Amino acid sequence: MPEVPSRVRIVEVGPRDGLQNEPTDIPTDVKVRFVDLLTDAGLGTVEVTSFVHPKLVPRMADADVVFPAVHKAPGVRYVALVPNPRGLERALRAGAREVALFTAATESFARANINRSVAESLEDARAVIAACKPRGVAVRAYVSVAFGCPFEGAVSPAAVAAVSQRLLALGADEIGIGDTIGVATPGDVHRLLDALLAVAPADVWGMHFHDTRGTALANVLASLGRGVTTFDASAGGLGGCPFAGPDAAGNLATEDLVYMLDGMGFNHGVDLDRVLAASRLIAASVDHPLRSRVYQAGGRPRPRAAAPVP
Amino acid sequence: MPEVPSRVRIVEVGPRDGLQNEPTDIPTDVKVRFVDLLTDAGLGTVEVTSFVHPKLVPRMADADVVFPAVHKAPGVRYVALVPNPRGLERALRAGAREVALFTAATESFARANINRSVAESLEDARAVIAACKPRGVAVRAYVSVAFGCPFEGAVSPAAVAAVSQRLLALGADEIGIGDTIGVATPGDVHRLLDALLAVAPADVWGMHFHDTRGTALANVLASLGRGVTTFDASAGGLGGCPFAGPDAAGNLATEDLVYMLDGMGFNHGVDLDRVLAASRLIAASVDHPLRSRVYQAGGRPRPRAAAPVP
Repeated sequence: MPEVPSRVRIVEVGPRDGLQNEPTDIPTDVKVRFVDLLTDAGLGTVEVTSFVHPKLVPRMADADVVFPAVHKAPGVRYVALVPNPRGLERALRAGAREVALFTAATESFARANINRSVAESLEDARAVIAACKPRGVAVRAYVSVAFGCPFEGAVSPAAVAAVSQRLLALGADEIGIGDTIGVATPGDVHRLLDALLAVAPADVWGMHFHDTRGTALANVLASLGRGVTTFDASAGGLGGCPFAGPDAAGNLATEDLVYMLDGMGFNHGVDLDRVLAASRLIAASVDHPLRSRVYQAGGRPRPRAAAPVP
Repeated sequence: MPEVPSRVRIVEVGPRDGLQNEPTDIPTDVKVRFVDLLTDAGLGTVEVTSFVHPKLVPRMADADVVFPAVHKAPGVRYVALVPNPRGLERALRAGAREVALFTAATESFARANINRSVAESLEDARAVIAACKPRGVAVRAYVSVAFGCPFEGAVSPAAVAAVSQRLLALGADEIGIGDTIGVATPGDVHRLLDALLAVAPADVWGMHFHDTRGTALANVLASLGRGVTTFDASAGGLGGCPFAGPDAAGNLATEDLVYMLDGMGFNHGVDLDRVLAASRLIAASVDHPLRSRVYQAGGRPRPRAAAPVP
């Protein structure tokens, strides 16, 4: 395959984005063990938890316990989601050295999701980034609904590029481009990346695809073709609330991404069987089947003795 | 996107490959209506049923009734699967003008699936094709387990190319390349197509991907990049037996393929909402959820009134 780069970075978002909307609560010790299994699997960046107000995201109310409790493996980046400077202070007290923050490409989604206008969310971002910089804390900024918005429909690449440019000007180190409702196709990916790569080079961008409509891996392939090599994924395909309607279906599954990248000869450092072990742990604590196709298939095929096919 | 061709042909295999292993029987009139809805949706080639012996595939025992009963829309190709000259005679009596036949890339799978060696299956193919040619009946030949075999593991592109070349020499009009157990990644697709395109031009090949490990759409994208434009798909992702273990998971869903191709601006003639209508019909007759991601998501996103995101 090497028309495309050979090294890919996978950002594991299962413990935060995956679990935050689960209908059942996950015990704190299971969350900690989940993160530890994921870093054991070779994932070099893990979004551990969210320091959002517990009333807004009750599933992350144990962030102050979870973050310090996870084993800190050398060289691994442990990321804490923070909505504002207050959340940042909690995250820093818990030991975070890298944070993620949120805005959106549309006003309607920013209002619905974080109760802020886009401009207000950028003011929050400015304050968070300003507090991070002198402390050497890295900042990843997410732009939600970068391909489509549940309220406004299709989103223009120019709008995503404009918000991203503002975040980079404020000092964000990297930008996560979220297909929050899972509508993108490879054509959309090419169009958006053409706009984004005019703003900043490929290593600034991370793609956060949802597999709502089955296109996530095809979108990864399209992104690789444009030289982008950072992808978010969630063990088991956790993410969204399985009972909250079609728009909320899950993230690209880490297993599915790793399986495809392995077959293409990419170097990413993640062991598929160990990711599956992490998914099995969490599968025992959630009350629905995991969406990952590779998880459902039991991982890689294992040749069996010749016998009639059912 | 136009690095790639703009016209794609979708071969709908749901009524045959999709339903043949369903644990519950589908009433004959539902099967007929299913095919009619699929051609209403714009599918230009539909594999209608299989004239295999009813003892081997009891779900297709009504082939002699189903095939004549489906509405024959002008310009649509209605395909009948036939295992041997006896099946061909039944298919021709039922009105078939195009047939499909099977062999495999490995001895173990040919033995398990059709109780023939590869050489014996090629003899069956020779007899079927010889009977078709003077009658002007088109023949599609499938090569199963073209990427991986449940018994023998990885399959070499050279083995697939050799069997395909034999089938073309016998007079097959096109070759369907089956990723029967859904193991392929885009890297495998490129490697195999490099071998196949040395044998015959792109319009000879149709790719039959299973979405067992989530890679089917990425594999379509990889195939398009090599100029191949014929893809099999199954409404709802029907196919394989959902209770028969991981290797048996479903075909690429027609909805998922159409959704991606629409987003990329390809011309294929199929209406997504009408495919979903066909899938809803069949969903009411099977005893498990359909696997299509787009079906599960309720189709294309429909912008809703601004309200808090759950």
